[in-house]
Amino acid sequence: MTIAEKIISIEKKALDRWNNGDPSGYLEICAEDVCYFDSATEARIDGLDNLTKYYEALRGKVHVDKDEMLNPKVQAVENMAVLTFNLVSHVGETNRKWNCTEVYRKDESGNWKIIQSHWSLTKV
Amino acid sequence: MTIAEKIISIEKKALDRWNNGDPSGYLEICAEDVCYFDSATEARIDGLDNLTKYYEALRGKVHVDKDEMLNPKVQAVENMAVLTFNLVSHVGETNRKWNCTEVYRKDESGNWKIIQSHWSLTKV
Repeated sequence: MTIAEKIISIEKKALDRWNNGDPSGYLEICAEDVCYFDSATEARIDGLDNLTKYYEALRGKVHVDKDEMLNPKVQAVENMAVLTFNLVSHVGETNRKWNCTEVYRKDESGNWKIIQSHWSLTKV
Repeated sequence: MTIAEKIISIEKKALDRWNNGDPSGYLEICAEDVCYFDSATEARIDGLDNLTKYYEALRGKVHVDKDEMLNPKVQAVENMAVLTFNLVSHVGETNRKWNCTEVYRKDESGNWKIIQSHWSLTKV
């Protein structure tokens, strides 16, 4: 399995859990120094503790019927990789379109962890 | 100079030119495989050629009186680094607030180049 395949696989598993109301999939693969942006935050969120507080408030509240990860791209060096994609999330008759950037870093145990996550709505 | 200081210095120089209508500051420090998101694009832009077309259409049209780069953070390994910050751009009496993620990769000549750029508006 290439780094790209591995990273995309990790992301899709976390995303599946997220879309069923479970933020733990992401929290379990975030590094302690993770930082985070989305379209509902007023500033960058720094650190796993703060991201955990933010995500726990959303537990059970996200239900996406189906998502499409479009054109996932991985740019990697030995110990760091950036995954980018567009995502379409379908909820009933509506959908939301996202830009996403995830930066992964390989830790000392050889596990890839997210150190930066940036979600934003695309132009509608 | 640390990697963090170097990366922040490179970004600030490009940003200063951008805020005076000159996109070349950024284009000169982008790698061929750069990819790009902002709040006005409908999907990820891939590659320096496509980003150049997008930026050239904006040449001379951006004029920011003053900007504030808030809490720049650099997370680095030997050959890749991610820079994140919030930016406040002041134009006259108005301002816009941005989330920004820049991923830099060190090339064979030792130069740091942007391989991924993600700009989005923060919650207002």
